[in-house]
Amino acid sequence: MKNQVNLALMGFGVVGSGTLQLLRQHKRNIESRVGARLNVLWVCSRTKKKAPYLNRDIGQTTNWRKAVTDPRVDCVVELFGGIQPALSLVTTALKTGKHVVTANKALLSKHWDVIMALAHKHMRLVYFEASVGGGVPVVQALNEGLAGNRVFKIIGILNGTTNFILTQMEDRALSFDEALEEAKKRGFAEADPSFDIEGIDAAQKVSILSSLAIGQWIKPSQVHCEGITHIQAQDIRLIRHLFKCHVKLLAIAEKRSTGWIFRVHPTLIPESHPFANVRNEYNAISLYGNAVDDVMIYGKGAGRLPTSSAVISDIIFLCRQIAMGTAGQLPYVTSLNGERLHFSKLSQIRCRYYLRVRSLDHPGVLSKITGILGEHHVSIDSIHQDAQDKQNGNKGVPIILLTHENLEANVQASVRAIDRLPSTVSKTVLLRML
Amino acid sequence: MKNQVNLALMGFGVVGSGTLQLLRQHKRNIESRVGARLNVLWVCSRTKKKAPYLNRDIGQTTNWRKAVTDPRVDCVVELFGGIQPALSLVTTALKTGKHVVTANKALLSKHWDVIMALAHKHMRLVYFEASVGGGVPVVQALNEGLAGNRVFKIIGILNGTTNFILTQMEDRALSFDEALEEAKKRGFAEADPSFDIEGIDAAQKVSILSSLAIGQWIKPSQVHCEGITHIQAQDIRLIRHLFKCHVKLLAIAEKRSTGWIFRVHPTLIPESHPFANVRNEYNAISLYGNAVDDVMIYGKGAGRLPTSSAVISDIIFLCRQIAMGTAGQLPYVTSLNGERLHFSKLSQIRCRYYLRVRSLDHPGVLSKITGILGEHHVSIDSIHQDAQDKQNGNKGVPIILLTHENLEANVQASVRAIDRLPSTVSKTVLLRML
Repeated sequence: MKNQVNLALMGFGVVGSGTLQLLRQHKRNIESRVGARLNVLWVCSRTKKKAPYLNRDIGQTTNWRKAVTDPRVDCVVELFGGIQPALSLVTTALKTGKHVVTANKALLSKHWDVIMALAHKHMRLVYFEASVGGGVPVVQALNEGLAGNRVFKIIGILNGTTNFILTQMEDRALSFDEALEEAKKRGFAEADPSFDIEGIDAAQKVSILSSLAIGQWIKPSQVHCEGITHIQAQDIRLIRHLFKCHVKLLAIAEKRSTGWIFRVHPTLIPESHPFANVRNEYNAISLYGNAVDDVMIYGKGAGRLPTSSAVISDIIFLCRQIAMGTAGQLPYVTSLNGERLHFSKLSQIRCRYYLRVRSLDHPGVLSKITGILGEHHVSIDSIHQDAQDKQNGNKGVPIILLTHENLEANVQASVRAIDRLPSTVSKTVLLRML
Repeated sequence: MKNQVNLALMGFGVVGSGTLQLLRQHKRNIESRVGARLNVLWVCSRTKKKAPYLNRDIGQTTNWRKAVTDPRVDCVVELFGGIQPALSLVTTALKTGKHVVTANKALLSKHWDVIMALAHKHMRLVYFEASVGGGVPVVQALNEGLAGNRVFKIIGILNGTTNFILTQMEDRALSFDEALEEAKKRGFAEADPSFDIEGIDAAQKVSILSSLAIGQWIKPSQVHCEGITHIQAQDIRLIRHLFKCHVKLLAIAEKRSTGWIFRVHPTLIPESHPFANVRNEYNAISLYGNAVDDVMIYGKGAGRLPTSSAVISDIIFLCRQIAMGTAGQLPYVTSLNGERLHFSKLSQIRCRYYLRVRSLDHPGVLSKITGILGEHHVSIDSIHQDAQDKQNGNKGVPIILLTHENLEANVQASVRAIDRLPSTVSKTVLLRML
């Protein structure tokens, strides 16, 4: 039994300083759960600027290697973000016998195999609650709370930026660009928001949750990924009024009869669904297990203290094991690399589709479009025109279609044929319904 | 490091057999997380009837003492329910050095002090995920996931029976009695449902969550408790249409400026609130911490496999520590008995109120009622009559009032005065809004 566990806090930005703040504020409670004193030996920041919350007991350095290889350090908390030097830092930590807490979704999703293999080889633990869902304790729930289940589906609103934009577009009838500006102003979008709005962030997070649930690395490149940049205020308004749905960027991992499929795309959510009220910067994740059916966890997906709270939770679990001398005797992530996985193609899924075709207002156009859908065996629930559209001076008229449940391959083939019609003036918008 | 952990499964009803079923089905996954073989030594049932899922390796007995005091047993899983013999069983287990998993909310809420003190004295662990929220991993989230927080509020839909009844009343315009019958038919209500519909079950669960969050025993008797039997189909319909709200039985533990307050009562939930779509037998719990803000967990609050899944989760956490020899070195529940708690009275809360006054249709009645509210400084948002009521042949007419935010004491005093009016024909229904 050790009575002190030594930490190196790598990265001292928003989350790093929040973590140190919580470690101070809740020292007594946290240490009573760890069963030992927690001692921050090093804070490593990338600039020489004097960081707040530091006192003279804590060494400050810009040289990550110095902190990570310090033989007194038991646990390295990686909050640098990005791939390098985070990857070198984490692999060096594991090779020199340190356990790791990380909030780095890009690193984990892209180098899951390397990191988990090293952790396994050196019998070290890697905890990563803060990498998915900010303050939402989903990694713990999935890995431990539902361990008596076979998890066959994960559906999440995993990106706060896009959820904020879509909520603002609906609530305030903003255009995509206006909502994005608002998100930047409120600190919910970065200067270059492409990572979020194109769905890449959500794809990385669903890659991590899937790898954990399945026990094998699911690469971000295996996740079909669509962003939200093609969605217009018009779509949000029509979907709300015609179909009583909200639009959310969903990340989905699902075992279908044809195999596993991983995807991120904007999705119509009926207003009676628990996700319907997940608004603005909030995240929500539903886990489906054979025993519990569905469990949903909801909370702030980002932000300084929510994310720091998740880091603290990892520090408690990990340092308790370090204090007791059991850390690494059992792996945190179970590897089931021996099992052969089957994968499904996006073209094999079945769901309902929202289509917005923008077409010249010529006689016979509607019959051509419905004819194409009929040829491809796509059955239609309803067809609408947008009465408000003409005022906007757009070219052509929007034709809104909601299909019954259909095969994706057939719907995609129809859309390609519709987009080849001379009367179609812009690319048809296709959204799936949950 | 032990390579086998021995269990005694006490109680072999719905959850007991479900637990054994999951232990079999997910044996490989569960044991890899425990790091040892799990061996069910005993199954204790209250009847001699041969139980299913048993093989000849497992001893079957109706004598709980024989199983619990078997020196080979490491962990006792208490699924008897009720107070006795469950209390003797748990205390005997702790005194003879066994760790305990229990799903027993009545036992824990009523004897929290005795059980936790014994666990502490004998350095044993008591895990109880299944006692609150069925398959919803809220105990773990509260105790460990949010350990870096000071939790100042817990709000939950903790009782599946009442939530099912209220959902059915709304969706199908059923009376309370009709909805209760439906709940019984579907297995969501017991033959004697008073425990659920009077809020006692929810009060016991909020007692457990509060005791855990605060670190001191909050007795069920400290929870102000109102059930749902006075709610009529009329209330549900009017609240839905006039105020765009749903009615849910909420359990609330909250630290207000005047102190902690614990209460269970039916509550108006605005339709944009995340709880609005928690329907039928589902439960949801929101935890408010100073770092994470709010985290909500949602899932099936009862049922054979969801509850068994929670028991399995406890077995994994606990038996992993038993296998490693560290179980009990740190307590699972942190006791903060030294801290002096301040309590608030129900009369001190402030919220909006829904009042349904049933009154004779005499001239001047409305002015008397509004006069009484005015005298008590209760400000009114809107007053309505129920146009559909006259067809029902009820005595008097219902007057529906929604107040602004007011002090509970003033609203209660007004209601007492209104109920003393000769024109008032039945007790006024008072519901609070979230």
